[in-house]
Amino acid sequence: MKIESISGGVTAAAGFKAASCAAGIKYRGRADMAMIFSDAPCAVAGTFTTNVVKAAPVIWDRRIVQTVKAARAVVVNAGIANAATGPDGLAMCAGTAAAAAEALDIPADSVLLGSTGVIGPQLPLDRITAGVAAMAGSLSDTPEAGTAASRAIMTTDTVNKECAVAFDLPAADGRGAVRVRLGGMSKGSGMIHPNMCTMLGYITTDCAIDQALLQRALSEVVPDTFNMISVDGDTSTNDTLLLMANGRAGNRPIAEAGEDYRLFCRALFEVCRDLAVKMAGDGEGATRLVEMRVINADTKENARVLARSVVSSSLVKAMIFGRDANCGRILCALGYAGVDFDPAAIELYLVGEKETLCFYRDGCVQVFDEDKALEMLSEKQIRFLCDMRMGGQEATAWGCDLTYDYVKINGDYRS
Amino acid sequence: MKIESISGGVTAAAGFKAASCAAGIKYRGRADMAMIFSDAPCAVAGTFTTNVVKAAPVIWDRRIVQTVKAARAVVVNAGIANAATGPDGLAMCAGTAAAAAEALDIPADSVLLGSTGVIGPQLPLDRITAGVAAMAGSLSDTPEAGTAASRAIMTTDTVNKECAVAFDLPAADGRGAVRVRLGGMSKGSGMIHPNMCTMLGYITTDCAIDQALLQRALSEVVPDTFNMISVDGDTSTNDTLLLMANGRAGNRPIAEAGEDYRLFCRALFEVCRDLAVKMAGDGEGATRLVEMRVINADTKENARVLARSVVSSSLVKAMIFGRDANCGRILCALGYAGVDFDPAAIELYLVGEKETLCFYRDGCVQVFDEDKALEMLSEKQIRFLCDMRMGGQEATAWGCDLTYDYVKINGDYRS
Repeated sequence: MKIESISGGVTAAAGFKAASCAAGIKYRGRADMAMIFSDAPCAVAGTFTTNVVKAAPVIWDRRIVQTVKAARAVVVNAGIANAATGPDGLAMCAGTAAAAAEALDIPADSVLLGSTGVIGPQLPLDRITAGVAAMAGSLSDTPEAGTAASRAIMTTDTVNKECAVAFDLPAADGRGAVRVRLGGMSKGSGMIHPNMCTMLGYITTDCAIDQALLQRALSEVVPDTFNMISVDGDTSTNDTLLLMANGRAGNRPIAEAGEDYRLFCRALFEVCRDLAVKMAGDGEGATRLVEMRVINADTKENARVLARSVVSSSLVKAMIFGRDANCGRILCALGYAGVDFDPAAIELYLVGEKETLCFYRDGCVQVFDEDKALEMLSEKQIRFLCDMRMGGQEATAWGCDLTYDYVKINGDYRS
Repeated sequence: MKIESISGGVTAAAGFKAASCAAGIKYRGRADMAMIFSDAPCAVAGTFTTNVVKAAPVIWDRRIVQTVKAARAVVVNAGIANAATGPDGLAMCAGTAAAAAEALDIPADSVLLGSTGVIGPQLPLDRITAGVAAMAGSLSDTPEAGTAASRAIMTTDTVNKECAVAFDLPAADGRGAVRVRLGGMSKGSGMIHPNMCTMLGYITTDCAIDQALLQRALSEVVPDTFNMISVDGDTSTNDTLLLMANGRAGNRPIAEAGEDYRLFCRALFEVCRDLAVKMAGDGEGATRLVEMRVINADTKENARVLARSVVSSSLVKAMIFGRDANCGRILCALGYAGVDFDPAAIELYLVGEKETLCFYRDGCVQVFDEDKALEMLSEKQIRFLCDMRMGGQEATAWGCDLTYDYVKINGDYRS
């Protein structure tokens, strides 16, 4: 079955509306709050940061995902993370949800929350509630509303991140197929080294699917998408990925892990990978996207660990910035990943659009065309391939280069 | 018993000589080879990189430490790491050791080797052997010879690193005490995130001590010294720390883990910590030394893991560079360290010479004097303290800030 890429984001699926506003939480002259609303109840799934220090909205959302398992709306703010804010921070969540519940005429425990920004300060509840009221009155199902929402949640991101796909599933009435849509938005640029999931990501679908399967699909897809990117090795206190399904497509509800479920998973994988790669490529200060593919590893997890180790290495990242084919650094990062392998057996390549250079084989760094390597390392997207020659498992990780601008942005973040 | 800090390095202990020379391996106009020689056979101990990709000299040295357990000389070169060089790289080790054995009239398997520099290229054996011959003819036990050796092994280091101490032990003949000396040198600036030990470090002592106890002392001291520093999270392929003891002090040989052994360990700790902290403070591009002390942790290992996580965080390092008291980043780094704790119970402080600021307590970032924090973060050495309030264990880790110059140095390393 074909999965088609379509335009749009969180409003691509039927029954989802979005809004945004400039609530003046931290930034001036830009929108800094976003709302997503479904006109029908949604099954909800989520993955959250593994950081022991969890932001208040993470604690709030996790409770809803694990106990209520359903939701109608999401309210997100940028500028302040509502992390390390103690009991007051949790009270702020309750206040925000109450304001949204009143404005949208839904239960408070059907309101999911998200915050991103500086750790420490308390949210200004008056501005948040005013923003919630304004957004409730301006909800729209247009693509423009979805795009505006994706812009409103940006912090140091330089581009907004959206993605949507469509595919066909059997109709609920058994008469042919219906079109199902799945779309999302995400933000994330610094403090990105997801473990459970990454940054803020919101995905909506009109697919009818059992909540347990929705969660299972998300948990299956995240390890090879959101969890395979790294900007700086720092796993945030706020990482949240939410997936809401309102069933409005009218498909035969997915109630078992059969063919329909697998198609849904493939579509979800496409959206998650797209959003994840966009985050890696928009890493703070980044000028290039780096892809590390590890093939023929002995286990899937080892393939992931090796690939992530390379894209997380400061020395590899600085080398990409400098367009220096110093492939010893890649070997070094593979070597300290914590996975056992025979250094004499593996092979390492730089993969371009037209040709491939062998960096390392038979235990030795190879002689390669330095001019060609410089040319390939000057592309916007750099691809490395490592053949472990141990088994049949593979994984791909994405990262970015380490630049002066990363240091500049993070040396002066709060100001 | 008192441990006295004395001047000097690898030639501080009796019976040790050093030499250096400009062999023209990679750099122009500077010394790039060093030699240490003991006029009596030495018990030898060592710790080595845990990187799966091990440089040829690491493989060479590990065999000698584990099977021969004795040595007479060390030959080190800077510029080329002799890593990822396959069987030819190992042959280069054999050739270098043979040249040293001939020039010094000692067995080849009593020659330890060390290399640091670019991964991949083969060493120029003709220049190495010419260098070995030149150094064998210019060995000296002066402090100047030790200092020159410490300079010769530098790569991106901006300062040479030496340290020596002296202490008294009972004399072998039972008549009073004799003076024992322990001194060392190390190099390391980038690719520093030791696991087993770090970079190249060579420590010499005239103490008479059983080889098994020598190794035990080194293995006990390294986890809280060399393994507690991080510059960039990259564990090198070449990390080597060697400790040689020739017994020339004439002390009652240390043959059991009693009082003399404990004094020796304390002296070794002083030297190792000094050399380790010097490496952290001289991290590539660094402008400041960062110390993270974790107290009242439940286990020693958890204290170490938490402290290391903070000094390894890119965001914390960039914040130090920017002198920004963005303490949420420290909390975040503690939270993703992989250690479980109650975020509401811990307390975080910025510790200055004269006063201490509380950053975080009772689950909340505290209000503190920002001007005072800026002033304290402008010092050359920054100290953070985290009270876990869980138990009685503590650990300290050292790192440095992340600067434009780190990116510059590593974007253009091979050129």
